[in-house]
Amino acid sequence: MVVVNILHMSSGVGESSYAKNSTLQETVIQKALPFLKHAIMGIANPGVMFGQCFKIADLGCSSSKNTLLVASNIIDVVIDLCKENNLKTPQLQVCLNDLFENDFNNLFKLLPDFYAQLEKKQGAKFGPCFVSAVPGSFYGRLFPDQSLHLVHSANSVHWLSQVPEGLENNALNIYIAKTSPPNVFRAYQKQFHTDFTKFLRSRSEEIVCGGCMILTFLGRGNADPTTDDCGVFWELLAHSLESMLKEGLVQESDINSFNMPIYTPCEYEVRDVIHSEGSFSLDNLSLFEVNWSPNDTDYTNIKDLRNEPIQSLGENTAKVVRAVAEPLLTSHFGNSIIDQVFKKYGERVAEHLAKKNPRHTMLVVSLTKTTMKK
Amino acid sequence: MVVVNILHMSSGVGESSYAKNSTLQETVIQKALPFLKHAIMGIANPGVMFGQCFKIADLGCSSSKNTLLVASNIIDVVIDLCKENNLKTPQLQVCLNDLFENDFNNLFKLLPDFYAQLEKKQGAKFGPCFVSAVPGSFYGRLFPDQSLHLVHSANSVHWLSQVPEGLENNALNIYIAKTSPPNVFRAYQKQFHTDFTKFLRSRSEEIVCGGCMILTFLGRGNADPTTDDCGVFWELLAHSLESMLKEGLVQESDINSFNMPIYTPCEYEVRDVIHSEGSFSLDNLSLFEVNWSPNDTDYTNIKDLRNEPIQSLGENTAKVVRAVAEPLLTSHFGNSIIDQVFKKYGERVAEHLAKKNPRHTMLVVSLTKTTMKK
Repeated sequence: MVVVNILHMSSGVGESSYAKNSTLQETVIQKALPFLKHAIMGIANPGVMFGQCFKIADLGCSSSKNTLLVASNIIDVVIDLCKENNLKTPQLQVCLNDLFENDFNNLFKLLPDFYAQLEKKQGAKFGPCFVSAVPGSFYGRLFPDQSLHLVHSANSVHWLSQVPEGLENNALNIYIAKTSPPNVFRAYQKQFHTDFTKFLRSRSEEIVCGGCMILTFLGRGNADPTTDDCGVFWELLAHSLESMLKEGLVQESDINSFNMPIYTPCEYEVRDVIHSEGSFSLDNLSLFEVNWSPNDTDYTNIKDLRNEPIQSLGENTAKVVRAVAEPLLTSHFGNSIIDQVFKKYGERVAEHLAKKNPRHTMLVVSLTKTTMKK
Repeated sequence: MVVVNILHMSSGVGESSYAKNSTLQETVIQKALPFLKHAIMGIANPGVMFGQCFKIADLGCSSSKNTLLVASNIIDVVIDLCKENNLKTPQLQVCLNDLFENDFNNLFKLLPDFYAQLEKKQGAKFGPCFVSAVPGSFYGRLFPDQSLHLVHSANSVHWLSQVPEGLENNALNIYIAKTSPPNVFRAYQKQFHTDFTKFLRSRSEEIVCGGCMILTFLGRGNADPTTDDCGVFWELLAHSLESMLKEGLVQESDINSFNMPIYTPCEYEVRDVIHSEGSFSLDNLSLFEVNWSPNDTDYTNIKDLRNEPIQSLGENTAKVVRAVAEPLLTSHFGNSIIDQVFKKYGERVAEHLAKKNPRHTMLVVSLTKTTMKK
């Protein structure tokens, strides 16, 4: 599976599109906003950074209103900071990156409104702000040398550049599961280490010294991924596929050869790569949690406070996963199984939610580019 | 009609898409290539220009293999020039611009192959080359101050930012025609003057001093647009709509309120705007011609040499026009008339081709940015 040519959030604006099912990602973006603000406020030499043109990249931007929400958030913070420091507002260039199959057309249709809102809010003299799209994998170079001041990425760096090699013995599992042999965990860890190193090295060449980077991505709270909610999340999808196998709707060999190109690292794994790559200083690493269902905004751990029935929360969780994983599953299994696999998944998630209150662990990492490694 | 939100070449890769019907535009690009080469070879201070990153913009790039053909042509010339001057090849940034509705998704799907071909041809050490997309109207700002070294545009600057105002008395004509009152010609001339001035002023702010711009666009050879082939071209489309009116398939008021947002200027009109805007020196202005039908590659004026029947040449011309004008017509008349209007148009063009050998006049303009006007 050539992830770079397949992976993308579900296109269009239909019922199962990412554009219609990205509330969870929006929650993550909003919860990470204080860290983003703090990182921008902490930029050394704002007089230099906010000179003629402040260049921002949003990596793995996807295609929904979240994409422009991020841009809008960053612009607001930059302008506030300039006002506080009595600096002239710079021109702004916002470069939106995602893989080649991302639905940029739908994103561009939102731009005339985005520009109109920006002018209404900031006045005609502001900026101007120039939005561009840069398609390609963030595990390689995307921008010229030293051309960016701020890099942001939300909900993306947990995607690997490829399915790790050597997972042939992972049987009916599709990620690291309780029944996975130990080499599976090691293969995922190794792939994350390789990919995240490449990510940092590429950005190191692209970001000016003193520039900053804020990454928010799926991680895990426990060292053991099979007991962590992140493992259970994909295990339930594997079980859904397995029950379709029992019904003769999916072939065993197809499940055997399918594994998710995703990894949810522990805090220490992230620190380790940043330290060994060496181009960035780690200014902050924080964790926060979000419930699986985007409609379940109760974070107090008391199930009774939930204002929606468990079944509906299960269905909503299934919609979130479908919006991010459908192109991967379709490419491997064909599209005939999709409706049913996510129906089963929604039911299994509902059963799980009745017993537990599982959450995604999100890592937020703020970095400053210090030295150039070649 | 808000041209900026409607105008685009026909999307997708179907039979009537621009991607499948852009041979004529490819011919224009190939014929303009010597001028492009000459302009790049004439760049003053190549040592400065080809420094760290050479930034190129292609304005009105559309969405077909032509788009990447242009990028590829420019890259080849830049690399040859660097080799001749013993200069290190710079990193390259190619910014593809078109309006918000352009089919960038299909363009991006061609990029993995484009990058692979580039690496095969130039070697892994070349560049790298970074391709990005910048959606928006080239009659306003698209890029930060002084951020471009080379601007290219083919087959685009003849599109106006809007239908000129005051064409209410143009009756069943859809462009400047023999039966148009004199104010129609003046309104089109004025709109071109306003738009082309805005175009040059915006580029003047974006291009570094010494940077160059090569524009190839539809013009006309005769001062009188109604006797020039360019006027006849749209008059035949107006006649096709008129015959549908007689059949009760189109409303008279709909034709009355429709005019093409296009203008094909004379050489002197182009010189006049460049001179009065004042930021660019005009290094070269040339004319060349292409036959209406993309399959009619005989430029010797002897009809007998044509290797295709007139009817087929008429149909092919209709396909070219459909690929560029269908979104405009659909937005105004609805899509139910489209098949028939272009069938009629093909027949009328065939009748015309039997009597004459009409041609598009193309203008190629090479400019160097000299001073900054604010």
